[in-house]
Amino acid sequence: MRKLFHYPLCALSRCVRFVLAEKKLDFEAIHEIPWEPSEELLDYNLFGTLPVLIDISGTSIPGCNPIVEYLEEVYTDINLIGIEPVDRAEVRRIMDWFEFTFYSEVYKPFITEKILKRFMKNVDRTSDPASIRLAGAKLTIHMEYINWLVDRRNWLSGRIFSVADICVASFLSVLDYLGVIPWQKFGIAKEWYARIKSRPGFRGILKDNLSQIPPSADYANLDF
Amino acid sequence: MRKLFHYPLCALSRCVRFVLAEKKLDFEAIHEIPWEPSEELLDYNLFGTLPVLIDISGTSIPGCNPIVEYLEEVYTDINLIGIEPVDRAEVRRIMDWFEFTFYSEVYKPFITEKILKRFMKNVDRTSDPASIRLAGAKLTIHMEYINWLVDRRNWLSGRIFSVADICVASFLSVLDYLGVIPWQKFGIAKEWYARIKSRPGFRGILKDNLSQIPPSADYANLDF
Repeated sequence: MRKLFHYPLCALSRCVRFVLAEKKLDFEAIHEIPWEPSEELLDYNLFGTLPVLIDISGTSIPGCNPIVEYLEEVYTDINLIGIEPVDRAEVRRIMDWFEFTFYSEVYKPFITEKILKRFMKNVDRTSDPASIRLAGAKLTIHMEYINWLVDRRNWLSGRIFSVADICVASFLSVLDYLGVIPWQKFGIAKEWYARIKSRPGFRGILKDNLSQIPPSADYANLDF
Repeated sequence: MRKLFHYPLCALSRCVRFVLAEKKLDFEAIHEIPWEPSEELLDYNLFGTLPVLIDISGTSIPGCNPIVEYLEEVYTDINLIGIEPVDRAEVRRIMDWFEFTFYSEVYKPFITEKILKRFMKNVDRTSDPASIRLAGAKLTIHMEYINWLVDRRNWLSGRIFSVADICVASFLSVLDYLGVIPWQKFGIAKEWYARIKSRPGFRGILKDNLSQIPPSADYANLDF
């Protein structure tokens, strides 16, 4: 059986879960805590980072990008990156934007304040409202650019649903779980995210519900 | 003419320069300052991040991974990622390791202390020796793993030189420029880096010499 080591509120783990579901590839999900990696996870990935995929062949692959590219190369029935190099570059540009710029400007400050400072051991728990204000202001810039892109295309990278949509939705869905996205200010992005929410491949992610960190009221609501 | 917007001491820019040189693809290098992006750069990439490639067709691609994957797909004479999906996954795993884990644990603290705090405007210039000590300790762990990998393989990802070597060498070369790598403690990694230094594709990087930040004594020395 294929296995995926993941954490429900890790955007990169969600990206791989969403890709696996869209490609209709079954897997056993192994729930890890990012700041307390299990011995089994460390056996597969000495840095303990998530996600890690163990494919049915036994091949283990750590890292969202390596896993996504591998799944595209091995399971070709459903293509999620596109065909032409220029189109594939646009998909990867959007992933890169979220994995580096959005990650450092928005995702990491929110995760640090709302998850890591609550649950990690040996961490300074003093809250930093200035970092949240700055991350919120940056979030607006990124959401406006998503609005702009979806207004000109059907999906984020072009006419066709791709792993760019999957990656961006995975990051936003973690922040939406924490209730920090003001969807009403970004109508076009909201309509795009409603389409994401109604995809069968996204259902597993909408069912996530951690007892210590419950989801925001409209997290799983298709009419939000 | 192909163009690359880059900064000489940006590891991700170096990675693309090294790939272009290995593939024997000419380009005009446009020197950018990461914290003061030019209007021209912002026209191509609204976030102002580096590197950005403008290919001969006029296609513009921001981001190291999107550029490297694009170059592999379009210029296939010299393959740098490998053929089999499992081998390609190993190359990308090593890139992912450096772009995320090594970046945050080692690269970013050194760059922050030794470059950003000296040259960026509106930044707190108070030095943080504890962050440098921690980054130095983490550097040892990563260097030992490089030693271990190269001892069992010929190059980092396997028998054949790949973009995994290019990516890791690009990150290490920036830290080596700053003189912070104790090569004598990591004999096998040092022998690997000596082989990298003697590659024609790496020559341009060894010639880098910023007037405000001169390279360490042995930076360009093949016998270091």
